[in-house]
Amino acid sequence: SRSINLAVIPGDGIGQEVVAQGLKVLSAVLPQDVKLETEEYDFGAKRYHATGETLTEADLDSLKKHDAILLGAIGDPSVPSGVLERGFLLKLRFAFDHHVNLRPSKLLPGVSTPLAGQPEIDFVVVREGTEGPYTGNGGTIRKGTEHEVATEVSVNTAFGVERVVRDAFARAQARPRKKLTLVHKNNVLTFAGHLWTNVFNKVAQEFPEVTTDYIHVDAATIYLVTDPARFDVIVTDNLFGDIITDLAAAVSGGIGVAASGNINPSREFPSMFEPVHGSAPDIAGQGKADPTATVLSVALLLRHLGYESEAERIETAVSADLGERGDSVRSTEQIGDALAARVAG
Amino acid sequence: SRSINLAVIPGDGIGQEVVAQGLKVLSAVLPQDVKLETEEYDFGAKRYHATGETLTEADLDSLKKHDAILLGAIGDPSVPSGVLERGFLLKLRFAFDHHVNLRPSKLLPGVSTPLAGQPEIDFVVVREGTEGPYTGNGGTIRKGTEHEVATEVSVNTAFGVERVVRDAFARAQARPRKKLTLVHKNNVLTFAGHLWTNVFNKVAQEFPEVTTDYIHVDAATIYLVTDPARFDVIVTDNLFGDIITDLAAAVSGGIGVAASGNINPSREFPSMFEPVHGSAPDIAGQGKADPTATVLSVALLLRHLGYESEAERIETAVSADLGERGDSVRSTEQIGDALAARVAG
Ligand SMILES: CC(C)[C@H](C(=O)O)[C@@H](O)C(=O)O
Ligand SMILES: CC(C)[C@H](C(=O)O)[C@@H](O)C(=O)O
Repeated sequence: SRSINLAVIPGDGIGQEVVAQGLKVLSAVLPQDVKLETEEYDFGAKRYHATGETLTEADLDSLKKHDAILLGAIGDPSVPSGVLERGFLLKLRFAFDHHVNLRPSKLLPGVSTPLAGQPEIDFVVVREGTEGPYTGNGGTIRKGTEHEVATEVSVNTAFGVERVVRDAFARAQARPRKKLTLVHKNNVLTFAGHLWTNVFNKVAQEFPEVTTDYIHVDAATIYLVTDPARFDVIVTDNLFGDIITDLAAAVSGGIGVAASGNINPSREFPSMFEPVHGSAPDIAGQGKADPTATVLSVALLLRHLGYESEAERIETAVSADLGERGDSVRSTEQIGDALAARVAG
Repeated sequence: SRSINLAVIPGDGIGQEVVAQGLKVLSAVLPQDVKLETEEYDFGAKRYHATGETLTEADLDSLKKHDAILLGAIGDPSVPSGVLERGFLLKLRFAFDHHVNLRPSKLLPGVSTPLAGQPEIDFVVVREGTEGPYTGNGGTIRKGTEHEVATEVSVNTAFGVERVVRDAFARAQARPRKKLTLVHKNNVLTFAGHLWTNVFNKVAQEFPEVTTDYIHVDAATIYLVTDPARFDVIVTDNLFGDIITDLAAAVSGGIGVAASGNINPSREFPSMFEPVHGSAPDIAGQGKADPTATVLSVALLLRHLGYESEAERIETAVSADLGERGDSVRSTEQIGDALAARVAG
């Protein structure tokens, strides 16, 4: 008999509320014969304040034993900027080598977008997750003086770029349009830019059916608002991916519905799935948060673990729910209940 | 009697056409007693192919003698990516210490935006122009092998950050709303982020009337499409500024109307004014390019040189022209003629 052994990290703010609904939908969609085991972890601001710890080696050893991780949100204004980001979120991505940061953007029927008209939006960003300016490489001299110099080093390796580019080509190959766009800034960041461009062109030869395209990151933001339909799959660097996926989420219905996966395709370590939105402390504990992004992250999680038809059932349920939502105001729990009922149905 | 000694760099593609109209409007707006002298330079792809040169020391010595520089666009697909960008555009910004890269965004009446509704957009981005990941610092080892490592170093100095932050505070102070937003990614790029944040908070004390605000660059792209009215003045790093000003141009009427100044406030070297758009080789030579962005760059140039009322006359003329434009299709020259007639009138 099959089983899913899940690490659950509700985290801070609305993380608790949305994860509860994600788990509800997960339980509802799984066939009877699949045993779901969950273990909850208390990472986040509360634990940091109590112990000073964000993520220890023992934590990593424990997390490692699970098939996958579901995360709500980590972050709180009471913790200095960077502490939880670098000490937990990025530490985990790096420790578990989550090099494929997957962020689909699809404008679903009934969902409003800040863009005029109702443009077709259905693309996936494959963001590199373990290199670029996110490595923590850099430093500061003469801190706090008028002679301070602070550097940030973007580190890019052929190994790291090639594996994510190949993953993106495979994803493009599997989609009807079979189109892959590289987003970078190779006219200015010429060292990293040449590496990305050369690796991209080399791997392209293995995927003759995939149409390729290159756009500078600044121009990409223009196309995301004027012609998002031109994108099918995008592959890009860690920082550019961070920036354009927030914009992509905004134009395709907002971060209330944006899901993401921090994936290690080798399965050497568990992959982690989380909504793109943060902990939103201003609305936490009020039942106002939309759990849809978390529920869609559960779908990505299921697909990653091989439960394709269950993933599709969730996505269909979300589409139907959004399509009928109109102006109705429902609580976090009501939306979770509605989605659980649909997937069970 | 007064005079303006202008270096003119038409450059590549549509650069020639739009600069001609910019100069036409400039001549029309200047009072009789101001003597306009121009010297044209042939920088760009043609010269690069003929001589291999992009910008020599002798060129810099010659450019240095002018009061300001008007640039059309530099760039052509026949030149490898990065050669003209690093060898001309960035070389000039660095050589003349153009540390204030000024990019206003204003949605003018009659101008269409990809955003639904007609949101109020009227902000200015002050982009740092001589530091960050644009310094060319970095390198490549084991090039072309599977062990290649390429780095890009973002260099940030207290000196460089403070001068641009102070400039931005002064600009915010001079505007009715008096609001300044720092855009960075200080939760991940913690070395540079702390420097920017600390300098920003320190300089803020000198401007008690200015309301301040901080937003991560990824979130800034969301606000630019969902709530652009929240911005008044933005100050940011060179790369973040590159990215968000293209998005800002897109939402506030497109790069056909986006102007920019590469300013050295000390006036030690001439400042350079240019449209944000590129050389658009696909429509070059056809009289299809909109010269409005260049004409608005001429207004920024005039303001920089102290011709405030002439700058305003150009801006008023552009507003009126855009407001009456409707669906009419006019040539580059027709638009230039119309604007020249308005400012002369
Ligand atoms: C919170 C932060 C570290 C993170 C990132 O920059 O990757 C977030 O913005 C994201 O996109 O997941
Ligand atoms: C052409 C390129 C070097 C330049 C930049 O990145 O600064 C352009 O995108 C701009 O914004 O002026």
